[in-house]
Amino acid sequence: MLSIRLNELTASDIVRAVRHGDATCESIARACLERIAEREGAVQAWEYIDRPAVLATAKGLDQRGAQGILAGVPFGVKDIIDTADIPSEYGSPIYAGHQPKTDAACVALSRKADAVLLGKTVTTEFANRHPARTRHPLDPARTSGGSSSGSAAAVADAMVPVALGTQTTGSTIKPGSFCGVFAYRPTFGELSCAGVKQSAWSLDTLGIYARSVEDLSRYRDALLGRQRESELRSVSKPRVAFCRTHKWDEVEPSTRALFEDAALRLRKIGVDVRDVTLPTAFNEMEEAHKWISSYEFTRNYTWEIENHRDKISETLQKGRLKNGLSCSFERYSQAKLHAEQTCKMLDAIFDDYDALLTSPVVGEAPVGFSDTGNSSLCGMWTALHVPVVTIPVFRGPTNLPIGAQLIARRGNDEELFGIADSIYKILT
Amino acid sequence: MLSIRLNELTASDIVRAVRHGDATCESIARACLERIAEREGAVQAWEYIDRPAVLATAKGLDQRGAQGILAGVPFGVKDIIDTADIPSEYGSPIYAGHQPKTDAACVALSRKADAVLLGKTVTTEFANRHPARTRHPLDPARTSGGSSSGSAAAVADAMVPVALGTQTTGSTIKPGSFCGVFAYRPTFGELSCAGVKQSAWSLDTLGIYARSVEDLSRYRDALLGRQRESELRSVSKPRVAFCRTHKWDEVEPSTRALFEDAALRLRKIGVDVRDVTLPTAFNEMEEAHKWISSYEFTRNYTWEIENHRDKISETLQKGRLKNGLSCSFERYSQAKLHAEQTCKMLDAIFDDYDALLTSPVVGEAPVGFSDTGNSSLCGMWTALHVPVVTIPVFRGPTNLPIGAQLIARRGNDEELFGIADSIYKILT
Repeated sequence: MLSIRLNELTASDIVRAVRHGDATCESIARACLERIAEREGAVQAWEYIDRPAVLATAKGLDQRGAQGILAGVPFGVKDIIDTADIPSEYGSPIYAGHQPKTDAACVALSRKADAVLLGKTVTTEFANRHPARTRHPLDPARTSGGSSSGSAAAVADAMVPVALGTQTTGSTIKPGSFCGVFAYRPTFGELSCAGVKQSAWSLDTLGIYARSVEDLSRYRDALLGRQRESELRSVSKPRVAFCRTHKWDEVEPSTRALFEDAALRLRKIGVDVRDVTLPTAFNEMEEAHKWISSYEFTRNYTWEIENHRDKISETLQKGRLKNGLSCSFERYSQAKLHAEQTCKMLDAIFDDYDALLTSPVVGEAPVGFSDTGNSSLCGMWTALHVPVVTIPVFRGPTNLPIGAQLIARRGNDEELFGIADSIYKILT
Repeated sequence: MLSIRLNELTASDIVRAVRHGDATCESIARACLERIAEREGAVQAWEYIDRPAVLATAKGLDQRGAQGILAGVPFGVKDIIDTADIPSEYGSPIYAGHQPKTDAACVALSRKADAVLLGKTVTTEFANRHPARTRHPLDPARTSGGSSSGSAAAVADAMVPVALGTQTTGSTIKPGSFCGVFAYRPTFGELSCAGVKQSAWSLDTLGIYARSVEDLSRYRDALLGRQRESELRSVSKPRVAFCRTHKWDEVEPSTRALFEDAALRLRKIGVDVRDVTLPTAFNEMEEAHKWISSYEFTRNYTWEIENHRDKISETLQKGRLKNGLSCSFERYSQAKLHAEQTCKMLDAIFDDYDALLTSPVVGEAPVGFSDTGNSSLCGMWTALHVPVVTIPVFRGPTNLPIGAQLIARRGNDEELFGIADSIYKILT
């Protein structure tokens, strides 16, 4: 038997242990449930857990000898994603006790790969900005970020090895950076969002949290419906663009110093890291993202607005809904056209670079729970449809995590994993 | 009071009559319900109607003086689209009696514009190819087409002035052509599909059926969340590409003759109609569409496949599911890349033309109910994300309708309406 705590294993280690008979799915699930019992009062990452069902599922997998690419891996699911056997409340009192009939595709694909649904993790209201109750695992006075607040915290706190989130602005990458885990937002349009409560159809993707790049890749394989896990691609001599962006002045000086230092360290060991200044069209992407997300969100939520406006937070009403209801189709179309054109410029940049290195956040997770932190360094990339990984390589002034955001060309998710893994190993 | 039968009015006529006090919403709804009572036995267009609720809604609108851009307009909704107050069964026994909590965005936006939900129309199983029971309104021995079988038939048979469908291959345009109504598939990504059971995220759009181009435009305005209906744009001297496509030999000779004759008639009165041969890349779009739709559909329906395979039709299992489960991510990605590149070629063609004219079908609706007719003349345009309108301008050898498919550049939906309206008026 293994000697380290089972809840601290990576998903890939769990699969190897289960396949070789070195651990049972039940023992893994019990270890995660015990960790949650111990820590949930402080962290508040979970919305719903059906403990007997979790153990029954794990035992069933042990009985039939699970061999799938997520064999015995407990996973958390952001509560904006439908589950057929436990409620899905979307972070809103409008959906209190709501029980969908069907699993979202990502949940069904996880189960098909022999993973064990551990429960639903806390989301902010409709995966928006109104903050949730989840605490930062390393500092209960701080937010874990949002909107995938619970999924990021649960993986960071060793409650589950992997969890599903979503991203429409920075909802996967930002909390991943704050909590010090690996997080991945895929190329737009590659992974099924069926059964995920839709925010904005031109922006939404799933997100994955894990404690290694290998696990991100393995979980992505499962969500693609692959029967075998891929090897991590090794990218020899990646060409990295260090991209401060026009928002660099908004980044805290201590965070800027971490990135400048990392670029130096990478160069010192021979990685090709060059400074890149983006064309000015990129400066308008934050505005474009605002109109696209607000316009689409507001149309999508017409039923809720018309029938349950009193149960929608002020944050949402005065933010995205106000913007969306005031946004004409013409303004929206212009924003989409701008994003499409900027996307082409970014494609051209990737003719010269394999990855961009940039900050996902201005600094550590903020103190307090009045908001979930600044997402403005993530939204542009979301609207440009590129794959993004954040790797936990930095510690800020109070020793809390800060991630490095790595970005690749649309469709180059597998190359991105290879680059992220090697840069992580260099920087840590 | 108006002298023609109220159920035969267009939506725009209804709105004008309601706003001016020339008709009540209740009288319109009653006329539609009476028509359905008379004809439903023969046509079988409806899955669910809550008659008292329809009348209560209409009376409520009369009491508060409906002024919305669909004031008093009864609308049918394909049963692949969620409704909060009546069931949504998606054409599958897996969802028998299923009651969603929420209206799809398109339903909520219709109601917000003061339309009256008349009921759910018959869809094929999961909007796929396994045929539904709906009969062609003009010949009960024939299919009305699919997958939006009931919506097309209901509008054609004067049961409702407008109805919602969806399109992933030819599911809106083909039944529209068969049934002799106006049908519209919008530019991909403009209208919200939230609350529509997803087939394929890179292909799905809503569809609209109506009995005039003006009504298509008005309904689109409502679905965009506009408060005022747009004027139809008049496009002076449209440049039309007559596009036989590489499938021309599969089109029945009588249908080919109708299109050749129409091109001549348009030219004769001075419309700029030129023959256009598409680059060979377009010939591979049917194959690309097959892999994109099958791959995405199969991932989306993982829950149904894993839990209720015995309740899925042979048609679907041996068709899209078999293809989808055998399709690798690499093949799928290649198909998407091919579609993206062909889309750019089509953009270039639209530098010289305002619209393409092409056949949506090989001929009249086929006899029998073993399938819903050939969709292969629609799927390519769906995968290219362009807006499409079919106008009921032809009659085939047995005097059944055949539509003309008009196609415009992505985002030029409003210009397309203007062109479709003027070509319709010339040809009829």
